[in-house]
Amino acid sequence: MSKKLLGIDLGGTTVKFGILSLEGEVQEKWAIETNILEEGRHIVPDIVASLKHRLELYGLTAADFVGIGMGSPGAVDRLNKTVTGAFNLNWAQTQQVGSVIERELGIPFAIDNDANVAALGERWVGAGDNQPDVVFMTLGTGVGGGIIAAGHLIHGVAGAGGEIGHMIVEPDSGFDCTCGNKGCLETVASATGVVRLARLLAESYEGDSALKLAIDNGDDVTSKAIFDVAQTGDYFANQVVNQVAKYLGLAAANLGNILNPDAIVIGGGVSAAGEFLRQKVEDYFVAYAFPQVKQTTKIKLAELGNDAGIIGAASLARQFLED
Amino acid sequence: MSKKLLGIDLGGTTVKFGILSLEGEVQEKWAIETNILEEGRHIVPDIVASLKHRLELYGLTAADFVGIGMGSPGAVDRLNKTVTGAFNLNWAQTQQVGSVIERELGIPFAIDNDANVAALGERWVGAGDNQPDVVFMTLGTGVGGGIIAAGHLIHGVAGAGGEIGHMIVEPDSGFDCTCGNKGCLETVASATGVVRLARLLAESYEGDSALKLAIDNGDDVTSKAIFDVAQTGDYFANQVVNQVAKYLGLAAANLGNILNPDAIVIGGGVSAAGEFLRQKVEDYFVAYAFPQVKQTTKIKLAELGNDAGIIGAASLARQFLED
Repeated sequence: MSKKLLGIDLGGTTVKFGILSLEGEVQEKWAIETNILEEGRHIVPDIVASLKHRLELYGLTAADFVGIGMGSPGAVDRLNKTVTGAFNLNWAQTQQVGSVIERELGIPFAIDNDANVAALGERWVGAGDNQPDVVFMTLGTGVGGGIIAAGHLIHGVAGAGGEIGHMIVEPDSGFDCTCGNKGCLETVASATGVVRLARLLAESYEGDSALKLAIDNGDDVTSKAIFDVAQTGDYFANQVVNQVAKYLGLAAANLGNILNPDAIVIGGGVSAAGEFLRQKVEDYFVAYAFPQVKQTTKIKLAELGNDAGIIGAASLARQFLED
Repeated sequence: MSKKLLGIDLGGTTVKFGILSLEGEVQEKWAIETNILEEGRHIVPDIVASLKHRLELYGLTAADFVGIGMGSPGAVDRLNKTVTGAFNLNWAQTQQVGSVIERELGIPFAIDNDANVAALGERWVGAGDNQPDVVFMTLGTGVGGGIIAAGHLIHGVAGAGGEIGHMIVEPDSGFDCTCGNKGCLETVASATGVVRLARLLAESYEGDSALKLAIDNGDDVTSKAIFDVAQTGDYFANQVVNQVAKYLGLAAANLGNILNPDAIVIGGGVSAAGEFLRQKVEDYFVAYAFPQVKQTTKIKLAELGNDAGIIGAASLARQFLED
């Protein structure tokens, strides 16, 4: 029987697990709640217990696995297989993750941050077509990203490679960002950023618009609602979406000119707007990118949804194939 | 005796050659004129003849070399070791380069484009400190670049990776670029771009300035003259230099946020302005970059000057060490 991979997607609400074939097919998956109480001290033991339980349930042993990969939020130390801090797991101190899991399961373990791992997943069996050059941008609560270039995940000197959300798209006059700068992509293309941009543009819009009305009424407006209203033909909502797409297209063009990837893949909650958003981003990308880049780099939607995390995590474990 | 590397830097005016140790020390170097007459048909034979002549002169044979590397202008086909077109060599058709040199010299040959090769050189023994993540931007007639990430030169899907000069720094309202877009970095940070920016800013500057006077007089102003006058304290010239540095700092910050390299190295003719320019670029880089990036990515000046080409070309040949 061919060996398997184990992928773990650690999040602030749930921990997702997957058992995959070496080709990236998900054979089993399950999830547990993330218990972040008591400084998150239960998280790693809970993961170990769940893994032991499921392996027994499926009649599998350590010998059936090439390795375990994990994606984690926060600051990951890949070499020491630790997480040196993760706000939404209540991890303030460095957590031993890899050493505990390797000792308890007897399977080699690898870890990387969640955005990078999702990028690996989309690249491997999703929209990335397993190409050596793929950029993944995820538009959610924040804007994150992962970059695979010349077949390698790009971490940079301090692990801050792929901070696509903090590319500056509106220097000087942009919104304040949580990072301390102004005009970062995240301030206009995250779920909250889209709403913030709509509120700003509403101040100077004079015409009829269901969206403008909702904003002026103080209703609770979401980015999803903005895209939905835009698709009904609301002129103002389309102005907002066009502006979001313009910033995304500009960032994608600069990413394209630097890396000329096969594809820039857009995922995360905001990308649920689908082809409606993708087409507009592509239009601006084509307007801003270098000719050879616009002809060869594609703008795509992510394909794996929530499974990108476990699939990408499992792909991390493929490094142990070569040992 | 330890084996050697051969590096060739093919340019529109001269072809530079270097014999290097495996550690990147230049042991011999020489140059010949580039004869671009008759559609550049003499270039490859001239290179072969010069190599044969020098090897005989130095008492060296094919067995003394690991390989030959070459940097070329134009569009390079690395796999087939050809140049599919190079305007400033008069090469309109695909040129057999590698097959001829390998047949005539009996030494393995590798080729890449000149900006990538210069980046490899600076990374290997210049300002790049042989780090796995280094970005090189060259400010000359145009603005070019080369990117080494996770230890690999980034070509992208169609070889357009590293087109740093075409990152958009002034969307919509910027100068027209030769690439067909508006507001590319090259339009404001190349030698001619700096002058163009000075002419634009001169239109609205009212105070005393030697630079403004020269422009209004229709004198032949160069980028070097603008930096020289700025260093004497000319207020307007400093406004121009600050604006150039701002664009470069913005581009460097976006490069930094994407790649988090150990260093962004600035070379080319415009960088002759040295520390005066580097410091200003760093100031804007620090203002625009993500906190973790500004703390870990350095802005540096290139160190190898004209030798970057032969050194980087020679480094291409190190791939044959592993065969």
